[in-house]
Amino acid sequence: MRTVHSDRHLLRANRTELNQGRLVPPFEKPERVAHILARLAERGFPAVEPPVEHGLDMVARVHAPDYLHFLETVWPRWTAAGYAGEAIPTVWPSRRMTRKGPPEEIDGAIGWYALCGETSISGGTWEAARAAADVALTAADLVAGGERAAFALCRPPGHHAAQDMFGGYCFLNNAAIAAERLRDRGAATVAVLDVDFHHGNGTQAIFWERADVPFLSLHGDPRFEFPYFLGGADEIGAGKGEGRNVNYPLPPGTGFEAWAAALEDACARIKAFGAEALVVSLGVDTFAGDPISSFKLASPDFLTYGARIARLGLPTLFVMEGGYAVAEIGVNTVNVLEGFQGA
Amino acid sequence: MRTVHSDRHLLRANRTELNQGRLVPPFEKPERVAHILARLAERGFPAVEPPVEHGLDMVARVHAPDYLHFLETVWPRWTAAGYAGEAIPTVWPSRRMTRKGPPEEIDGAIGWYALCGETSISGGTWEAARAAADVALTAADLVAGGERAAFALCRPPGHHAAQDMFGGYCFLNNAAIAAERLRDRGAATVAVLDVDFHHGNGTQAIFWERADVPFLSLHGDPRFEFPYFLGGADEIGAGKGEGRNVNYPLPPGTGFEAWAAALEDACARIKAFGAEALVVSLGVDTFAGDPISSFKLASPDFLTYGARIARLGLPTLFVMEGGYAVAEIGVNTVNVLEGFQGA
Repeated sequence: MRTVHSDRHLLRANRTELNQGRLVPPFEKPERVAHILARLAERGFPAVEPPVEHGLDMVARVHAPDYLHFLETVWPRWTAAGYAGEAIPTVWPSRRMTRKGPPEEIDGAIGWYALCGETSISGGTWEAARAAADVALTAADLVAGGERAAFALCRPPGHHAAQDMFGGYCFLNNAAIAAERLRDRGAATVAVLDVDFHHGNGTQAIFWERADVPFLSLHGDPRFEFPYFLGGADEIGAGKGEGRNVNYPLPPGTGFEAWAAALEDACARIKAFGAEALVVSLGVDTFAGDPISSFKLASPDFLTYGARIARLGLPTLFVMEGGYAVAEIGVNTVNVLEGFQGA
Repeated sequence: MRTVHSDRHLLRANRTELNQGRLVPPFEKPERVAHILARLAERGFPAVEPPVEHGLDMVARVHAPDYLHFLETVWPRWTAAGYAGEAIPTVWPSRRMTRKGPPEEIDGAIGWYALCGETSISGGTWEAARAAADVALTAADLVAGGERAAFALCRPPGHHAAQDMFGGYCFLNNAAIAAERLRDRGAATVAVLDVDFHHGNGTQAIFWERADVPFLSLHGDPRFEFPYFLGGADEIGAGKGEGRNVNYPLPPGTGFEAWAAALEDACARIKAFGAEALVVSLGVDTFAGDPISSFKLASPDFLTYGARIARLGLPTLFVMEGGYAVAEIGVNTVNVLEGFQGA
């Protein structure tokens, strides 16, 4: 399996994350990628390929123009305002705040576009996010061109990013952008299967009313886990997309048996939807040792479920999402790919 | 003029505020009160009186039961979860998050009840907020009992707190609670005049559909200033309250002349509404030296506008809100009261 990756991810090197009332070093950090690259090499995967620049056309199919402008300008605007820390929202259009649209001041505008507040923005974030979208698009082109599967080693991740909102370490929704590309290149129905521990709220929002991109997500029950305000089993899509959004909220402490049963159901639905291609939002924070998640998968389980996904028999694009047990992220991620290849 | 105050405000002693991407010592701090008390004594005001405990009945007329339960339990729940810092929300029901109601986990529940994210909660916050509400109620009773005016030296402040949301350093809306008390004690119409630099979004939300408590606010234009997402001139109330919510958003750098012109208009409307009593949400962060505000009032201007308010000829309750230029907060606050008394 070929891997596409850009070292421009290193430009995303923020220093602070708001966590449990403190500013701590971010869980989503560059070292995550280094461990995955090392494991790919160790297991004899082909040399990583750089992305082809695709411009913003496909990105703009998923994200709103005002949001892209915000992402490109937020850091210079923040520093021009004289703010000393990294860019973190403190005020947003909360339930009883009715004004629509971003205010002029950047301290307020960032709240308009923020899904949540743990994710700080610093210089280089926009450049890294753009490179990650190019990684996803380039890898999607490999699959569209006939490869059985490809791995888009994206960083920053993407599945929390909605049409016009960032958060959960995500800025551009790489998986959604890649799914659009696969549609363009001829797959009539492209399923997105999100196996990250956290609900892929951004991807759900983007394809909510679409029949051609069904979205299926296995994740921690939002009553107990981030992002808390989306991801319920009763969220089934709307309009043409009704019945094509499928959430599997699972309780804290879920082990592989229950998780795999949900995956089995998801695979059956992907078949039933008539998917011609598959995008896997690949987060490995379902691992028992993950510092911010609560599922109990062991490293061999990742091999097992990679093989199960392969049995769908679909052209498959793996897009990297979360996973914060850094020492094990390489083994767990590459196990999914090896399980897939060995099936 | 008699002043009601509780030293239980000292229980509100949080250490952190999220500001410009950093955690800094809070601008809203106990020392603010010490300077006001010193100035009151220096100018020969009567000795400060402690509040009478009123229980939660009047508080519950303004705030939702689930919100009061949240405020009472948030700190023990936060510490029981093992979180190391003070309680600060990081995720909330943002624009594209549709789930209604608080999640089980306190890290998510705090986001449901949060108006914004700069205000941390620590032990003692609930107790101090309850005492501040008692201060407002006790001072309201002085006015209802025949005093020309009284000063409720509340801390924490209240005007940003909505029916079920905290933020902007506010937890219980002292001014709104006092206005309800004055209504109960016989004033058919009680106007709330908010002269704090920041829009009193909580008070507006509470009385939005009420004809008997018109709300008038002079404040920094929310396109440029906190709370950003409420406070426009086009927000006029609804239902029976239509036409009784009056916002005066003023540009950054506004000086006393323009500010006083807006006050003049507000006074004319208070007359026209037929108010029988007045609650003044008294923030003195309109002062030129305020560290987080942008208006340009000088200390003598506070005397002038205190006198103007007195000329309304209404029984008047002053309720302390913001003001962060600590060295000058005593002079500016007491100037309003002296201006009022000297008129």
